[in-house]
Amino acid sequence: MGANINIRVQNLEQPIDVAEYLFRRLHQIGVRSVHGLPGDYNLIALDYLPSCGLKWVGSVNELNAAYAADGYARVKQMGALITTFGVGELSAINGVAGAFSEHIPVVHIVGCPSTISQRNGMLLHHTLGNGDFNVFANMSAQISCEVAKLTNPAEIATQIDHALRVCYIRSRPIYIMLPTDMVQAKVEGARLDTPIDLSEPDNEPESEDYVVDVVLKYLRAAKNPVILVDACAIRHRVLEEVHNLIEKTNLPVFVTPMGKGAVNEEHPTYGGVYAGAGSSPPQAQEIVESSDLILTIGALKSDFNTAGFSYRTSQLNTIDLHSDHCVVKYSTYPGVSMRGVLQKVIKQISASELNVQPSPVVQNEIPKAVDDSPVISQAYLWPRVGQFLQKNDIVITETGTANFGIWDTKFPAGVTALSQVLWGSIGWSVGACQGAALAAADDNSGRRTILFVGDGSFQLTAQELSTMIRLKLKPIIFVICNDGFTIERFIHGMEAEYNDISNWDFKALVDVFGGSKTAKKFAVKTKEELEKLLTDPTFNAAECLQFVELYMPKEDAPRALIMTAEASAKNNAKLE
Amino acid sequence: MGANINIRVQNLEQPIDVAEYLFRRLHQIGVRSVHGLPGDYNLIALDYLPSCGLKWVGSVNELNAAYAADGYARVKQMGALITTFGVGELSAINGVAGAFSEHIPVVHIVGCPSTISQRNGMLLHHTLGNGDFNVFANMSAQISCEVAKLTNPAEIATQIDHALRVCYIRSRPIYIMLPTDMVQAKVEGARLDTPIDLSEPDNEPESEDYVVDVVLKYLRAAKNPVILVDACAIRHRVLEEVHNLIEKTNLPVFVTPMGKGAVNEEHPTYGGVYAGAGSSPPQAQEIVESSDLILTIGALKSDFNTAGFSYRTSQLNTIDLHSDHCVVKYSTYPGVSMRGVLQKVIKQISASELNVQPSPVVQNEIPKAVDDSPVISQAYLWPRVGQFLQKNDIVITETGTANFGIWDTKFPAGVTALSQVLWGSIGWSVGACQGAALAAADDNSGRRTILFVGDGSFQLTAQELSTMIRLKLKPIIFVICNDGFTIERFIHGMEAEYNDISNWDFKALVDVFGGSKTAKKFAVKTKEELEKLLTDPTFNAAECLQFVELYMPKEDAPRALIMTAEASAKNNAKLE
Repeated sequence: MGANINIRVQNLEQPIDVAEYLFRRLHQIGVRSVHGLPGDYNLIALDYLPSCGLKWVGSVNELNAAYAADGYARVKQMGALITTFGVGELSAINGVAGAFSEHIPVVHIVGCPSTISQRNGMLLHHTLGNGDFNVFANMSAQISCEVAKLTNPAEIATQIDHALRVCYIRSRPIYIMLPTDMVQAKVEGARLDTPIDLSEPDNEPESEDYVVDVVLKYLRAAKNPVILVDACAIRHRVLEEVHNLIEKTNLPVFVTPMGKGAVNEEHPTYGGVYAGAGSSPPQAQEIVESSDLILTIGALKSDFNTAGFSYRTSQLNTIDLHSDHCVVKYSTYPGVSMRGVLQKVIKQISASELNVQPSPVVQNEIPKAVDDSPVISQAYLWPRVGQFLQKNDIVITETGTANFGIWDTKFPAGVTALSQVLWGSIGWSVGACQGAALAAADDNSGRRTILFVGDGSFQLTAQELSTMIRLKLKPIIFVICNDGFTIERFIHGMEAEYNDISNWDFKALVDVFGGSKTAKKFAVKTKEELEKLLTDPTFNAAECLQFVELYMPKEDAPRALIMTAEASAKNNAKLE
Repeated sequence: MGANINIRVQNLEQPIDVAEYLFRRLHQIGVRSVHGLPGDYNLIALDYLPSCGLKWVGSVNELNAAYAADGYARVKQMGALITTFGVGELSAINGVAGAFSEHIPVVHIVGCPSTISQRNGMLLHHTLGNGDFNVFANMSAQISCEVAKLTNPAEIATQIDHALRVCYIRSRPIYIMLPTDMVQAKVEGARLDTPIDLSEPDNEPESEDYVVDVVLKYLRAAKNPVILVDACAIRHRVLEEVHNLIEKTNLPVFVTPMGKGAVNEEHPTYGGVYAGAGSSPPQAQEIVESSDLILTIGALKSDFNTAGFSYRTSQLNTIDLHSDHCVVKYSTYPGVSMRGVLQKVIKQISASELNVQPSPVVQNEIPKAVDDSPVISQAYLWPRVGQFLQKNDIVITETGTANFGIWDTKFPAGVTALSQVLWGSIGWSVGACQGAALAAADDNSGRRTILFVGDGSFQLTAQELSTMIRLKLKPIIFVICNDGFTIERFIHGMEAEYNDISNWDFKALVDVFGGSKTAKKFAVKTKEELEKLLTDPTFNAAECLQFVELYMPKEDAPRALIMTAEASAKNNAKLE
């Protein structure tokens, strides 16, 4: 290390190592566990974790680790992931892309070769052999809202603070490239006394007031206004505002599939899931689509979130509040964020000024028609799950029958729902379950974590069960055993071999992964067996990891899935 | 489909669907099995596989599928992989990047949304939600030697033929984007009567002759010339030329670690593995480094291939023949490919003109010093493996103790060795083993496939064992149980928790994955037990999948690994 850097270090009030600075900042913003895998370009950095109050979670592979960091962030506001250059980061990239797509703040730290090796273009392992050390960062730039390459100690502290702020505010992943020779470079530790400013910038007041006035005018004039809460209300953290708006207005409130868990579903004005033709209860569709003013909060109108673009609503009857702009009918207000607008609307409105229509009744009612057979059908399962759930549970549903089925589940208050309706990467939920359960444990919240995953999807990431067992986490894991990729069957190839999977002895994995003494295993094939399990107080107490094989018919699927799959198949096949 | 396209179809002699055209081309160039996972954007294409003579291998996840396609290509010259847009392709991208880094021709076909959905910027699942349908192709462009977006039926057949030719010639992955609405578009089937031209372009004759003359001059003048064969001799398919050169010259021949398997190690002039200070036998270092003319063929001087850049050779004594240029001492000849040069050199040279020095004797000799304890040490294992191997075996070694240990194994003739010395993605070998074993089965070659993988690495991709069981493949799998990431321990953190792993009941996975009746399991903890197994005729016959837990000490490693790890640790820690 040359004289220049020594002089610089002497100018620092409290010199501390870059790795320590980074990890203390992570701790300050609420991270307690960091996911990832060791690799020679990140090993020295890992040594710093324990003294910064961070737990290292060695996942079983990097994709699982990324999924877990995503699940952790969904429960605890922020997740972190450490991988090694090239091989590690690329294995994780689909998980990080999912976090980008779904607006989840994940800090991805990549240990990489030293700045000296990079300058010299050395032919190192984990490279493409072409001397290009930026190629992977360039790939990640596509799915990160900030890329910070830590190569100059004089700038590193500022880079870290800025990147973490952007990660939180924009609620999307950032990418931090940490060369081995920067891990122990010195930065100003005194900066740590001032927390990173995570507050969102205020709206420009005149524009905000203008939007508020327009919103109030239309709300007051509407005959049957409704509120529709979607994904970005959760991701951009306006749930308190949403709650206050509902309390203040008493308006009927609906959620989209990606908005599940955003509102208290036990609230008397809760009207169910609106997803066009896939709405649950079906009356939700009628009420929303006949409303003359739909106030959407954080809308994300993707195919699977709208049951295949089956909305029949008019923009003329719609106000859309977003994190970075608002749209009232056909007028767009760029740069006006929903939080400020909501806060002012809540202050200025009262229920007495509004035409408050009744909401449909939402219940976890099992349709009588399906009750005859002992077979566990989709129509039976999801309302039954609603009866089983408890206040503040964390519920994770995999892409497939589970994340469509859950539309028919009414949650108790305080439930956090995790799903990947937009990105839809199968296998995600197993990693996410590990992260979510760990976040709950880090908070000592005592919240139960409950996973529903199909057998096909489970196979992709099955070994993350091993991490859950090692960490002594206590999720309840339902593996829906229905012989393969049911969602694909309904899109194309009901009997096709490519939608089949190998039949595994799923629950035996618990023992393989070291859980024979600590975890419990169940196999449930009939409604009666399921009833017995779901009403068992020990099972409900969830005091250890519980793994349930849940057998369901291969060609059965939730109504919403069937409808959405048909729409997808049509769209895929459409010719000009 | 509009009138224009109908007219176009009528102009085709033998109209066939795009998917059929693509798959028939794959079949023509030797592919028989295609790896991947189903996803709604690729389902219809998958329907075409069987009628084109291709077997669908549903792997357990996309990364495993990519590794398997890589392993398949290393045995059968070309591999193919089908994934779905976004989620599938990104899960596979690390495996494809490895194929790029290591010069393996893998065809990556990505089923993607229809051109209509793309033009309309629809908010579809498996997207980033920003209407950008090119972002993933742009990422893959970094690790592909050709990107073909099949969007215009008039161009598709040409695009496919060109891309497949480039894949083969450059021996690197290509990326083919197949929109759902193009799967059944019509292209000219009559083109299939003419196979794709896979021949390499000839060198410009005058340059080639010039290089040949220089090479001959130096070879004839040298006092103790040697041949050093490296990775790209295998990848760019000049092994026949290499073999003829050895036969014709009788010169001492050495291989690098990545060149293992390139030459017949039973040939009397074979002198072992040259890797600088990590050479095996150690005399190989002395002989190569004191040679006044080292003729390298397909050199790839990466850190792990040179035991941490420990070559002590001079470019003044070196001729490097590459696939796209040659270097004689300090003169570079761009565009002159090694094949033509080798062929002419072989024709014009004879052993009698050369100073042929003796080669060191290479034997699978177990060092006596390590023979006392019953513990299976690294120093004992690898020569013992050499005694166990048979002619034409396929041997796969994972990054870690295995791919360093194998330097001490002398192969019988015809062995194909698979390792990932440059890219070094842990877990790769399990997928690669599936692909390699399948390639051998597709060839009805009866070759045994033998995998050595560490317990830590095995965990990343363990479930690919399930595919091997389903396909009734018969590899011999040795899982080296030594409690975690030994290679990382030797780089940094010998006792660090982050280098530990969960202890699994590894061999029980065979039953979990459905192999209880077809596969065999073994646990081997002493030399005596290993001897018994390796000399058992039934075990040697390898008539079913055989899974061996091989217990070895945690802090033991091959000499070459220890040396290379030390060099890596120093390089990582180096400051200016």
